[in-house]
Amino acid sequence: MEKPSPIITLTTDFGTSDVYVGVMKGVILNINPDAQIVDITHDIPPQDIHEAAFTIHAAQRYFPKGTIHIIVVDPGVGSNRQTIVCHTDNAFFVCPNNGVLSYVLQDVETENNPDTIAIDNPTYLMPKVSNTFHGRDIFAPIAAHLSLGVTMKEIGTPIHDLISLPLHTASISDYTLTGQIIKVDSFGNMITNISEEMLGLFLFSSTHNKTLEDELSKHANTINFEIRIGITCINKLNSSYAESEAGVTLAIIGSFGLLEIAVNMGNAGARLGLKVGDTVVVTKDA
Amino acid sequence: MEKPSPIITLTTDFGTSDVYVGVMKGVILNINPDAQIVDITHDIPPQDIHEAAFTIHAAQRYFPKGTIHIIVVDPGVGSNRQTIVCHTDNAFFVCPNNGVLSYVLQDVETENNPDTIAIDNPTYLMPKVSNTFHGRDIFAPIAAHLSLGVTMKEIGTPIHDLISLPLHTASISDYTLTGQIIKVDSFGNMITNISEEMLGLFLFSSTHNKTLEDELSKHANTINFEIRIGITCINKLNSSYAESEAGVTLAIIGSFGLLEIAVNMGNAGARLGLKVGDTVVVTKDA
Amino acid sequence: MEKPSPIITLTTDFGTSDVYVGVMKGVILNINPDAQIVDITHDIPPQDIHEAAFTIHAAQRYFPKGTIHIIVVDPGVGSNRQTIVCHTDNAFFVCPNNGVLSYVLQDVETENNPDTIAIDNPTYLMPKVSNTFHGRDIFAPIAAHLSLGVTMKEIGTPIHDLISLPLHTASISDYTLTGQIIKVDSFGNMITNISEEMLGLFLFSSTHNKTLEDELSKHANTINFEIRIGITCINKLNSSYAESEAGVTLAIIGSFGLLEIAVNMGNAGARLGLKVGDTVVVTKDA
Repeated sequence: MEKPSPIITLTTDFGTSDVYVGVMKGVILNINPDAQIVDITHDIPPQDIHEAAFTIHAAQRYFPKGTIHIIVVDPGVGSNRQTIVCHTDNAFFVCPNNGVLSYVLQDVETENNPDTIAIDNPTYLMPKVSNTFHGRDIFAPIAAHLSLGVTMKEIGTPIHDLISLPLHTASISDYTLTGQIIKVDSFGNMITNISEEMLGLFLFSSTHNKTLEDELSKHANTINFEIRIGITCINKLNSSYAESEAGVTLAIIGSFGLLEIAVNMGNAGARLGLKVGDTVVVTKDA
Repeated sequence: MEKPSPIITLTTDFGTSDVYVGVMKGVILNINPDAQIVDITHDIPPQDIHEAAFTIHAAQRYFPKGTIHIIVVDPGVGSNRQTIVCHTDNAFFVCPNNGVLSYVLQDVETENNPDTIAIDNPTYLMPKVSNTFHGRDIFAPIAAHLSLGVTMKEIGTPIHDLISLPLHTASISDYTLTGQIIKVDSFGNMITNISEEMLGLFLFSSTHNKTLEDELSKHANTINFEIRIGITCINKLNSSYAESEAGVTLAIIGSFGLLEIAVNMGNAGARLGLKVGDTVVVTKDA
Repeated sequence: MEKPSPIITLTTDFGTSDVYVGVMKGVILNINPDAQIVDITHDIPPQDIHEAAFTIHAAQRYFPKGTIHIIVVDPGVGSNRQTIVCHTDNAFFVCPNNGVLSYVLQDVETENNPDTIAIDNPTYLMPKVSNTFHGRDIFAPIAAHLSLGVTMKEIGTPIHDLISLPLHTASISDYTLTGQIIKVDSFGNMITNISEEMLGLFLFSSTHNKTLEDELSKHANTINFEIRIGITCINKLNSSYAESEAGVTLAIIGSFGLLEIAVNMGNAGARLGLKVGDTVVVTKDA
């Protein structure tokens, strides 16, 4: 098994005004003073497992192999939900078994199930485990011990049933591609679950190696499509925000490789009044 | 004297939108490039010394011995209030002498006064000390020099009068235990100054080694008590948030070992309209 | 050329609730696991280049020589604006060429133009550069490679035209010194572009080495001046906030060496209803 790196990231809904994040960092550094702690975000909306799942999935692919990611969005703390360590090809995830890995697991080949254990060895936990703060009592010490080379086998027992959220997925029919908003970022950009590949497949019925941008410029005069979201219609795919005038609502393949609805220099979420789960429909001429 | 660690934590009311925190980190790293800087929080409400005192007390016990904690909540900056270094068994505190250590000092045996100095050697300060930003000019450079091994003796002169805030303390009579809310966290959980031990003593008149939870389950049928806070009455102590239905107001021994009033999946502070200083009363049957 | 330090700072308008900052940190650590990443702020108002310019200027002087500063406030991302590395005597700046270095460049002797290159070597970028997130695809990897010793020459081509914002500058006539608010901080303190030196020059027509405070106390009985801001008049320069009663509007030379209008224990910006760009006028008796 790959050795974990000393990089430990934190993704929580604790906010940054309380002491909870500081306490977790203290616990980690007390076990491994050389751990390099990186905040991903502590501003996941309280108990929003879906948002946490989206966030850790989007972040983890950029970190060095073997990075240890702690995710604490944990409405079931103190109930009988499991606490787990999950090891993919890319990283270690230390979190509750409540669906926060749903997007991460989508990327993992199903026949190649990731190593996962349910944490059950008290040796590596805080001496007294509360029912209210497993970030401090379980997740932080486990991550710190992992970073020191303690193995998953020493920490717990293998399990195979990972909880997964019912995720929205985009669907294609002959003339309609239907997706959903899965994230509204702090700029107000509305990110959908329609990937660049899927949009290319829908518009050009092709899976060959041309990028969507190349296809669009090649077929500029022959392809007509419409992106509908709420009461807004967009007939064009931008290649940059700045290509539109300030204030214009636009569609673009954003930095996650997903179709995104934005307003140049403005806030699309606030203007259009839409939210996670709302529908986006792309149609094309017959 | 124990050697300080290279870990330096920051607790301030500076917020994170201005440059002040970044400036302090620059000053520290300019003196000790190997310092490991950890943010506890920068979102203490402006000039709220009590909140800072609660926060640093709750955080410091989890950090490695010898950690250096800077606390800058300092309405008296530039007045004649002292700037100090206080060394307890556990940590070094670099801060104004204005009460931010009130809760930390409660834990220290009074006969075993912590080493404290008033900072007065300009060698270890910024060349020009302003009257407006001692975080940059005094606290950051002193912490950085401490982390390099400069001793307290070299930095200043011993003092013995540490300012302490008038703290609320819970009080027990035969049939009534009265405490106060001392912190409302960002989840809206209302943390009181009634400790698990105190509640056990009040309910079971016992100080032996049984935990409160054990006592409660043992006396489940014979003990009746009521927790009153504002117009709300609670007759039960939860062992986890998730044990109650979503939306239910509950009482629990929280992660600080203190009685806490919470709403499962909700915000108790917002719902009950209560704040720091408000009273909590526990009563029991005669 | 001076070798960059492994300290890399981040100043962005990304906020801390999304994944963007975490992604940039992942990219940096993936290239240089020993980089020491320091957040200056991620709460620059969206697309506010002036605020970013003020912030990085105020912060950079306190960091060790050779520190690498990434600034991503970048409304033109994906347009033909350049991405640059600028090397001053003090630091390396990795940012768009859009004016974010305006205040930094004010401090640099004009005949001694800082080394600047436009980034154009794809070797040191992410394999695929998006049009929407150059923080991830260009600025983070360039900074990480710089911290490993890659030279500016290897990264791009020298340029000489750095974009500068039209900055407000204070102006002196015989009896009037006119400046502007250039920053309102999160305490509500309103920082102007009137420096301590300029105020000394205006009030005492002197450039010798006495500090403004010394001059003021020496001429306490003979100098009369008035600071007007909105409908407020102030006739005195404080030497600390705490010198005024709580709630009093005051003028002070703040921690940036600039004239600042504040309310002791209060929020001057909220009370006076003023904002960046508003005028401050100092007058003195004939």
